[in-house]
Amino acid sequence: MKRRALISVSDKSGISDFAKALQDADFEIISTGGTQRALEEAGVPVTGISEVTNFPEILDGRVKTLHPAIHGGLLADREKEAHWEALQAQAIDPIDLVVVNLYPFKETISKKGVEDADAIENIDIGGPAMLRAAAKNHAHVAVVTDPGDYKRVLEEARGSGIRFDTRRHLAAKAFRHTAAYDALVADYMTEEAFPETMTLTYEKKQALRYGENPHQGASFYEHPLPAVSSMAAAEQLHGKELSYNNINDVNAAFALISEFSDTKAAVAVKHTNPCGVGIADKLPAAFEEAYAADPVSIFGGIVAVNDTVDADTAEQLANIFLEVVIAPDFSDEALAILQKKKNIRLLKVDMDGDRKGSYALTSVSGGMLVQDADVKGLVDADVNVATKREPTSAEWRSLGFAWRVVKHVKSNAIVLTKGNRTVGVGAGQMNRVGAAEIAIAQAGSEAQGSALASDAFFPMKDTVEAAVKAGVTAVIQPGGSKRDQESIDVADEAGITMVFTGMRHFRHA
Amino acid sequence: MKRRALISVSDKSGISDFAKALQDADFEIISTGGTQRALEEAGVPVTGISEVTNFPEILDGRVKTLHPAIHGGLLADREKEAHWEALQAQAIDPIDLVVVNLYPFKETISKKGVEDADAIENIDIGGPAMLRAAAKNHAHVAVVTDPGDYKRVLEEARGSGIRFDTRRHLAAKAFRHTAAYDALVADYMTEEAFPETMTLTYEKKQALRYGENPHQGASFYEHPLPAVSSMAAAEQLHGKELSYNNINDVNAAFALISEFSDTKAAVAVKHTNPCGVGIADKLPAAFEEAYAADPVSIFGGIVAVNDTVDADTAEQLANIFLEVVIAPDFSDEALAILQKKKNIRLLKVDMDGDRKGSYALTSVSGGMLVQDADVKGLVDADVNVATKREPTSAEWRSLGFAWRVVKHVKSNAIVLTKGNRTVGVGAGQMNRVGAAEIAIAQAGSEAQGSALASDAFFPMKDTVEAAVKAGVTAVIQPGGSKRDQESIDVADEAGITMVFTGMRHFRHA
Repeated sequence: MKRRALISVSDKSGISDFAKALQDADFEIISTGGTQRALEEAGVPVTGISEVTNFPEILDGRVKTLHPAIHGGLLADREKEAHWEALQAQAIDPIDLVVVNLYPFKETISKKGVEDADAIENIDIGGPAMLRAAAKNHAHVAVVTDPGDYKRVLEEARGSGIRFDTRRHLAAKAFRHTAAYDALVADYMTEEAFPETMTLTYEKKQALRYGENPHQGASFYEHPLPAVSSMAAAEQLHGKELSYNNINDVNAAFALISEFSDTKAAVAVKHTNPCGVGIADKLPAAFEEAYAADPVSIFGGIVAVNDTVDADTAEQLANIFLEVVIAPDFSDEALAILQKKKNIRLLKVDMDGDRKGSYALTSVSGGMLVQDADVKGLVDADVNVATKREPTSAEWRSLGFAWRVVKHVKSNAIVLTKGNRTVGVGAGQMNRVGAAEIAIAQAGSEAQGSALASDAFFPMKDTVEAAVKAGVTAVIQPGGSKRDQESIDVADEAGITMVFTGMRHFRHA
Repeated sequence: MKRRALISVSDKSGISDFAKALQDADFEIISTGGTQRALEEAGVPVTGISEVTNFPEILDGRVKTLHPAIHGGLLADREKEAHWEALQAQAIDPIDLVVVNLYPFKETISKKGVEDADAIENIDIGGPAMLRAAAKNHAHVAVVTDPGDYKRVLEEARGSGIRFDTRRHLAAKAFRHTAAYDALVADYMTEEAFPETMTLTYEKKQALRYGENPHQGASFYEHPLPAVSSMAAAEQLHGKELSYNNINDVNAAFALISEFSDTKAAVAVKHTNPCGVGIADKLPAAFEEAYAADPVSIFGGIVAVNDTVDADTAEQLANIFLEVVIAPDFSDEALAILQKKKNIRLLKVDMDGDRKGSYALTSVSGGMLVQDADVKGLVDADVNVATKREPTSAEWRSLGFAWRVVKHVKSNAIVLTKGNRTVGVGAGQMNRVGAAEIAIAQAGSEAQGSALASDAFFPMKDTVEAAVKAGVTAVIQPGGSKRDQESIDVADEAGITMVFTGMRHFRHA
């Protein structure tokens, strides 16, 4: 008996050659609709699906392969006599190979202004049913979803038949294909937050040499439709492949630079924490500030800026060892300057496009914490001056600056700013005053006249005491501690000002 | 014309009452196999699937609903004259309601020692095809996968018909159901690491009041089959619901305590970093050590221990304010002591069971970083003494202890241990010597004679200089810096010992 292959593909690349070769290897080719036409035009004789089912394609093609003549042929267990008898009784022949890929649901919903009806029409029903049936019955049937597998399948089909290992591998791939497909459909259709099941699908973008450490394997996956303004949509213009830690740092730098839509800004990130942030009217000056903020830690760091990198800024960037520079663009001159450095990576990221609200995910053993990303800025109505003294307008500016930075520092976090730069960053401490002490020590004499931001409230007055002692004149923090009044008293006594935001910015990952 | 409902469920809870009520609301009930028998026994008249298809159930039930009489009835667009004509020509009646849940693939693969053939046989083919067809055509068809939706559907069906909003909502749920199903099948069948697509599925375990911060919505999801020894499989014995930050901290504490299978140990965690770790022959002594390590930061923290909490330990734990205590078990006395505290949460976690290697996931904007969890311990063959002086056996023990802790501290990380406790933890710093300074400052006079572990190599000699100055006598670090020799020289000159592990433990999330 001739072997039979059922071919119905949306991605037609290489399909004619593959079908011809299968025919030469003595396969009968069964096909439908557009695939059938393409194969016939290429001179491959094809048995139409209706000849197999003795049933017309109906409902504009919605029902053509959902038929026992197809699914019986796919699902029969060739080792069971009773199955053979059932096939014979119904005049069904077995199908040995299925080559199917699905209606382009992703491409459809990625079109601007796509109509819902169009999206729904592009949900494939017959295709996944065939893939799943063939994959389930991989003991006897081979299922191909990816043109990249045609060569291997052909070689084996020409020889002693497609091997079990190959069929098993292809079956797993088919289920990955249908799982990814339905996850995207579910995501498109789901309106509620935090539904009863969450199935997240990603496409491999880059195999990484290793993870956070060399003994950990790793890969970078992207959402099937990443937002325009996102880490995953960044375009690399120069340099070696990004490492795991690069990507993680770039993501942190990108999130922080996104806070500064109202001024030119430069941020330096090290180990996912900001080590220096500068703002100014022009980019070169903003980078000078960020560099001056901490000329030591920036070494080997990641820099993000929110304006086109010009020659001036490029010269400064080229003077230090940096792993990555991220910008909305680079001038030709800047590119020429920076491309001379072999070890720097340059990334271009749209900073004004769609960001798409998405979940922030943190894996824990056996599960996943899912939360909305922390993208909320200060709400004026919630901001209160807690002290007798109001901030001056310069202090308001410094406090707003410090607040935007502290949101991106690992908790417990304290940030000191002065003028247009950070002067102290206290990150990742297990107690709050410890974070303050680190920031103050780093600031040194620059603490005098600086503004201090805290990502969470002060459980005790010790942080404000340390701030006063260091010469800080303005403080911003959520407020809400039982012992707020003690901190306020310390501030009032010293004549400094303190603002409550009513909002906390813990960040641990 | 009578409305028609097709019912085929694996989970039969409430199905008879639902079917009866549908029948009373003038639905014709179509059913198959076990569902049909159950309904008939309950006295509900049922039309068998073969009466609808004029085709026998074949291949042991593998093919029964994969038939145009079913799928035409599900997929016809009731607004198209041509679709009505096609149905009429083929003598197909429309189906208005589909009630299907799937073969229990999850339950099958969760059985100990399940045979692959059994798992594969339990992959449902007909069910998902019906769910997907009905969900696609939700403009006209309602699809129910969850007995929890029977009531709402019935109320609407009895009234003016099932509303569009409801049908859309149910369709999204059906696609979540099939996506989750295929993700689990794909996960079961996939053997390669980091495949071309990764589709991860989780089930909601707990709606959280909020995320890291009150303005972020959040939920805790678990893997469909969480490992026995995992955060998600923990059983809460007492106290309020866990918060987002509790879960994250518990996960960190659980990972750290898992390092100590060879001794009794207690760890205190704050903001996902360890603040105190103690080891001893007995649990009460281990906790005393952990507490003494940092009696300030433990306040409001999370404690994990690796032995049954006894009355002694419970008394100590009850003396301080703790958010959560995690243990393999609690004695009745201990439970009685701790349950008096309203605000403490007690979690019981199996610490000896299957842990199942899984990926650690970190979301970045537009994508996901996926890596193997960092579960590797010291490899004796890779450990080298770099200095002239070898560690004493007491120093070897302290170094091993410090190394196990530093692996769980956010980078850059330095840990100082002395005897059976940590005396300094420097976490989350942007430069290495900064982390060392924090750890040394915290240790105070206890730094004298302590052991120091660093999660990554020393880029410069300054950390060893600081260690020597503080009185540290033994150092453990990966080695591999270009300037290792400078650090070695400092150590040799001071007569201290330094060990290279050949392994780094960066940790950022």
